[in-house]
This record gives sequence, structure tokens and C-alpha cells, in this order.
Amino acid sequence: MKNKSWIPALTKLLGKTVVSVSEESRREHGGDAWFAHAMPDVVVTPRNVKQIQQLMRFCHARNIPVTPRGAGRGYVGGCVPVSGGVSLSLKKLNKIREINPADCVAIVEPGVITKDLQNAVKKIGLFYPPDPASAKESSIGGNIATNAGGPRCLKYGVTRNYILGLDVVLANGDLVHCGGRTHKNKLGFNLTDLFIGSEGMLGVVVGATLRLIPYPPARAVLVANFKKAPQSAAAVNAIINAGFLPSVLEVADKFTLAAARAYNPQAPQGESFVLVEIDGQKNSVISEVKSLEKILQDCQALTVKKALNDEDAEQLWEIRRGFSYALKSTGLKKLNEDVVVPRGRLVDLFTFAEKLQKKFAVSVACFGHAGDGNIHVNLMVDPKTADSPKNRQALDLLFKQVLAWKGSITGEHGVGLAKKPWWKLAANHELRSLHQSVKNALDPKRILNPGKFLD
Amino acid sequence: MKNKSWIPALTKLLGKTVVSVSEESRREHGGDAWFAHAMPDVVVTPRNVKQIQQLMRFCHARNIPVTPRGAGRGYVGGCVPVSGGVSLSLKKLNKIREINPADCVAIVEPGVITKDLQNAVKKIGLFYPPDPASAKESSIGGNIATNAGGPRCLKYGVTRNYILGLDVVLANGDLVHCGGRTHKNKLGFNLTDLFIGSEGMLGVVVGATLRLIPYPPARAVLVANFKKAPQSAAAVNAIINAGFLPSVLEVADKFTLAAARAYNPQAPQGESFVLVEIDGQKNSVISEVKSLEKILQDCQALTVKKALNDEDAEQLWEIRRGFSYALKSTGLKKLNEDVVVPRGRLVDLFTFAEKLQKKFAVSVACFGHAGDGNIHVNLMVDPKTADSPKNRQALDLLFKQVLAWKGSITGEHGVGLAKKPWWKLAANHELRSLHQSVKNALDPKRILNPGKFLD
Repeated sequence: MKNKSWIPALTKLLGKTVVSVSEESRREHGGDAWFAHAMPDVVVTPRNVKQIQQLMRFCHARNIPVTPRGAGRGYVGGCVPVSGGVSLSLKKLNKIREINPADCVAIVEPGVITKDLQNAVKKIGLFYPPDPASAKESSIGGNIATNAGGPRCLKYGVTRNYILGLDVVLANGDLVHCGGRTHKNKLGFNLTDLFIGSEGMLGVVVGATLRLIPYPPARAVLVANFKKAPQSAAAVNAIINAGFLPSVLEVADKFTLAAARAYNPQAPQGESFVLVEIDGQKNSVISEVKSLEKILQDCQALTVKKALNDEDAEQLWEIRRGFSYALKSTGLKKLNEDVVVPRGRLVDLFTFAEKLQKKFAVSVACFGHAGDGNIHVNLMVDPKTADSPKNRQALDLLFKQVLAWKGSITGEHGVGLAKKPWWKLAANHELRSLHQSVKNALDPKRILNPGKFLD
Repeated sequence: MKNKSWIPALTKLLGKTVVSVSEESRREHGGDAWFAHAMPDVVVTPRNVKQIQQLMRFCHARNIPVTPRGAGRGYVGGCVPVSGGVSLSLKKLNKIREINPADCVAIVEPGVITKDLQNAVKKIGLFYPPDPASAKESSIGGNIATNAGGPRCLKYGVTRNYILGLDVVLANGDLVHCGGRTHKNKLGFNLTDLFIGSEGMLGVVVGATLRLIPYPPARAVLVANFKKAPQSAAAVNAIINAGFLPSVLEVADKFTLAAARAYNPQAPQGESFVLVEIDGQKNSVISEVKSLEKILQDCQALTVKKALNDEDAEQLWEIRRGFSYALKSTGLKKLNEDVVVPRGRLVDLFTFAEKLQKKFAVSVACFGHAGDGNIHVNLMVDPKTADSPKNRQALDLLFKQVLAWKGSITGEHGVGLAKKPWWKLAANHELRSLHQSVKNALDPKRILNPGKFLD
């Protein structure tokens, strides 16, 4: 913002420990895991909800942009403060306020790191299933802002399936409690879900009541590699047709496997790969692993490995994680596009990615969540020219094809800045107009995270 | 409405087969399964989406109330057209447009009867889990309007967990497509979920894309009866603590059991009752039944019966269904209150219901979905004085206690007219004000289902 005359008043209101104008802090709070960056005028790091209400009232009265941020691990530049103003960091609101085994709920502040919450509830036999790849670094608040997913969604669903209630500070500073601590609730409109996934554009989540479920006593993992992609797609279908809804059902394509082998000669052979994880009662898991092993073999898997305890399971997961390490080791920037296709289009998507690779002479590696059709299409680009016209054109073709298949351009990362250029293509006039109505109703001065897909 | 001059023009616009002014039809479309009734001025039964858009444009221009209705099986008077105007019946939009096993989706019109959809997808090995007690009579559209639940929610969640996309006609006649056919989608705000459970007050759902999952190959049911309520509550906890998330986990209290025995001497003895249903792979189900049987016995069940095939399972379900028949046979009107308490309050709720029964000399029978704390508290009242001050006072005490326990006054039926008197108690000023903002944004002339909890 050109006008910075408000900064001293805000600093006086909240104190110097809460409001920072240091260049270092502002730089740190100007981006996420994507490449875009913009400097906020100040970084505000509140210690309590009251300070957030004070901040919002102050900024609402003066039309000052406020861009909330979690741990800054997003993949789409969703928390980049493109209009300057305030970068609002929720990281100091990081207490787990309650874990209640009788009610199967946890009440947390938004800055709690997802993995910390998972570990805390696991200790008493409870399970918080959402597990984005960034779980060790990202926060529950950020997960809520993007409705984060991860590999466990096929059986367990996304973040929203585990949010029972939210405390939200609105643009005008009002504090609203939506939902509650019951596992079912039909009181009024479902405003809780309206805030989930709203990318900081409708309110600031300052507390969340989470639904927990019993921790499954046992789990098992199987990995299989195949000569060709259609065989792994057939395996995915065969597993589902046999009445399985595995907690995880991941696939990877031939370019991912080739990259993995270049990085580690022990990586799987073949052109496609499937990882299945199941969980439940111990005897059930043991018997189901046998059935799954047979299904994978019947689908002409080159090899099938299985793990029936946590340690072995982690080793098999390392194969899958190795794909990410292999891609990172190239030194290229990974443009991780979380497209979703109807599941029947899995092989079509791999074939299309192969064409894209040839056409643009850019490496494209596909892997991800086959069960729900949410495949990460990773364009490996020179970090210096990540936003080049060529890369944009490749993405443009990808997104257009995904939409033509009735897919979605984002399954778990959100729109942010990265997908803003395709917002109008993905959402027609009526849908965009409805978004504007809702935005104007909740944030009439449009101070919350401006410059994103609605501007 | 006093002014009826618009009726000929509407009849001309949509035709006499679509617009009915007959008293019989208007009477039929003036209520649901609750006791409230109001006559609409006309009943409109469109055959296609275009007619619904025409209707809404017509009524929007003239400020005519429109109250959408599904199959009229609601429990809270949600579709009672209290301000007259148009009763909009969606029953003729009843086609299953597509069932796609490759993508695991179904596309349906709102008038499809829920059970018909369940049966159609089951034939090809797929499962639509939402299963409200009214599934044979209620429609998908009505289920969406109330976010219907039922006994399977503990493992499978509510209606919203199976809605991927919605086609909605807005108050002004615009047709909006929210969501889509992918199992994950993070495009824009979650407007799909805003319409789900909005009780016809934000838009008219004219099409839905449903998420299907593989049909579990096997299921089993166990029923157990206990001497005292705390034993069944202990059994519920023991089941969950053993890492089970059963598809169904139902309880019933001593008054329900007494009523059941008065109706059928074969009904279970004791003061409390638990029904557990599990599903999954065949061998898993067989082994898990053994574990569950042991848990129930360890919790001092008087008897445990189990069923490992569909036919036997249906027989055990008949015991549970017998509770409803027993209550119906009394000739009294069942005020079915779908309150939800945090699960740790189950025994407290039964104790409270017992006190209520004594204080008001009215029969109160509690049974329902123990796993998620959603217990149906049934006040058995004289149908002629269902809305008496005494009954209202009893409900008032019930709802106040539930709220004091941080419960919800409605878990699956909605607010409608039945719970409207307690809306202000359940939702504070800020939450109500946010509801009004959203309502005004989507229906600025407030023509959709007026007279309900926001008016």
C-alpha cells in the first residue's frame, strides 16, 4: 500500500511484539511453497483471539488488506499478500486446548502443526485421518483454508470431514462460532463448511473442533509394479470392484519411475506402480492382504511386496516417498498440479501427460491418489523461468483437457494465484457471480486476502 | 397470499398440467410428517429445469413465496408453505440420469426416491450409504435439503458426504452448477455444501451428482440387551475403544423396551439395548463378529444374538424396527426430537429423559444412533394437543439441557417450524446475523421458503 500512515496506530493498538515492520519478517511472510512473493507492509502475529478481532476492526474501518496465513506450506501462492497491507500469521495460536476421548473430539488453535495433533491423539488411541504430504510442517488452520487432502482421502475423506465446529473472526471483527462439538449437527445453514477451503477470503479461522475416530489397531501396505499403465489402472479397478475401499490407493507413471531409478537403482522396474494401504482389526487386515496380493498378481504385477507391521510399512512407503526425492534431486522446480479426473480417465491422463512432455520438451511426472482420481501432474521446470509462457501454455493445455473430461483443476491445493488465470475457464458466469455475492455478504469491503481469484 | 391475481398468468406460463389450484392438491402439499399445515395458493409440479427457472423468474419479479418440497416426509414442517404462494413439488423430476461404475458416480434428479437409487446402484456392486429411516418414501432432494442422516452415519457420514455436485436454481431463476463429478474438488468456495441442509431457503436443487463407493461384500449384525443403561453405554465405549467404527451402533432405553414388550412379548428384556452392524470383506466380518460378541458379553449383556447373512440380519433389524411399530401402535403422536449430545453424555441424556417423563406425565422413549450421540427422544403425545403448552415446556427443558451439554437441538431433521422457537436459543446474535447476510445475498427478496427460522 502507498499509504502507510496507519502503521503506527496499529503498532500502538497491538504492541511491537505483535506488529512487525522489519524487512526480514515481511520477506518471510510474503510467500509460500510456490514461487510468487509480495511484501506485506506489516506482519501481525497475534497471541489471542481478541487481538485478531482488534486487528480486523482496525483494518475494516480503514480498508486495509489482511492476508491470513498458516505455516506457509501452500502450493498455489494462496497467502501471498499481493495488495500489501497486513500479513496475519496465526502461528502463535498453536495450543491444543482439549482432547476428549469420551466425545471423540479435539479443540485446537489454528497454528497447531497437523502432525503434532495426529501424534497427540494417537497416544490415546484416537485418529485424525487428514494427512497432507506437508503434515509435519503445515498447520490445521492452513489445512482448513485449503481443505487439505492427502493420500488417505479415498476411505477417510478430506479435512472438512473432520471439522465439527469453527470459531471465525469475520472481516468486521465479529467472532462467530459455527457448528459445535457434536458429530452430527443440522442447526441452520452449514456455514462451517463455507469457511473450510475458502482460502482466507471469507474469515479468519481462530479455533477448530475436530472429529476424531478410533485409531485402527492394524495396518498393512502392499506395493506392486507393472509393465504398462493400463495394468495398474486395471488393478485399481479390480481392488474397488472386489469391494475394497483402501485407506490409500496410489499410482505412479513411467516418468516418475524412470526418475526414481535414475536417483536410486533399487527403485521399481516397469512403467507403473501401485501402493495400497489398508487398516482395521488385526485379523481382518491379515486376511485382506492375502486377497489384495492375489488381485495384484492376477493383474500381472511384475512384483508385489507387502508389509504387515509399521516398520515394514514405512519401508514400503519410502519407495513412494523416493519419487518426490528423485524429482527434487533434479534441481528443477516442481510445478505440482493437483488436478482431479473422473476415475475412469486415469490412463487417459497419463497418456496426455506423455504427449505434453513431448510437445513442450519438459519433464512431466504423474503420481498420486488413484482412488479418487486426484493425480499430481508435476511439471519439472527451470526455477528461473517457472512462470515462462511455455510453461503456462503447457499448463493451459493440461487444465483445458482436465475440464473437458469434467475434472477439476484443483483437488487439494486451492486456486490461490497459481490457478487464478484458469478460474474463469473452470467457473462459468453464474458460478462466479454466486461467489461474488457470498464474498460481498461476508466481506463487503473486500479486505480479506484481496487479489486472488475473485478480483 | 391475499393477492391471487398472479395465478392465471403463472398458469398460462407453465400450463395447467404443471400449475394446480385444486383444493385437494393444495391440501396434499401443505404439510409433511409433522403436524403443521398451511395451504399454498398453487401447487407447481414442473417436468423440467427450464420450468423451474421460469417459475422462479416469475415469482422473483412479483415477490411471490416459493416453498420447495421433496416427498414430504420431513419431521419438522420444513416444507409447510406458511406464507402461501407456491408449493413447488419436485416429485416429477425423478430420473436417474446416469450411473457410472468407472467413475463411481450417479447423476440424479431431486425427486428420485432414496431407496430406488440405493437399489439401482447395488445391482452393479455400488453403495450409496445415506439411509434415513424414511428411505423408501423420501427423495434425494429432500435428503439434501435436510442433510439427512440415519443409522449408518458413524462409519459412513451423512448425505453431504455423498454429494459431489449440485445443479441449483437460485431465487432469481439463474441455474448454477456447483462442484462436479470428481471425488475431490477445491475449486472456489464450497457452495455445494452451503445448499446441502439449507431447507429450501437458499435455492432449489434440481440435480445432484452423487459419490458412490464399492458395496461391502459382507455384513453382520449383533444385538444385545442389558439390565441397565450404563452397561450399554459401557459397551458402546468398549467397541469404539477396541478400534471399531461400526456402520451402525444403535441404543434404546428402558421405556422403549417396555413399550416394545407391551406390543410384542418376544421383545428383549432389560433396560437397555444395543445393535451393532459391521460390513466389509467376508472373512473380516466373520472374525470381527467374534470380537464384538466377546466385548458385548464382557459388558454383561443379558443375551447376544448375531446374524452373518442378510436374511438373519434383517430379522435382528426387525427387533429394532419393532420399537417404532410399538410406539406407533399406541395411537399417540410421536414428537421425534433428533437431538445430539457429545457421546460422553449418553447416559445423562437417558436419565434426563426419565425425569422429563415423570415431571410432565408424558411417555418419553429414547433410541437412536449412539455412535454419534444422535439420540431420538420421542415424546408420545395426544395428536389433538401435540402443540400444547405442556409439551412445549417439556421440549423447552430438553433443548435447554442439550444446549447446556454443548449438544445440538437437531442432528438430521433440520429446524423447520418444529424447532423454530428454539433457534434464537441455539444460535447467538453473531451466528444469526451471519445467516441473515448469507440469506440476503442468495435470496434478497426472501421468497424462498419464507416464515422459517430466519423470519
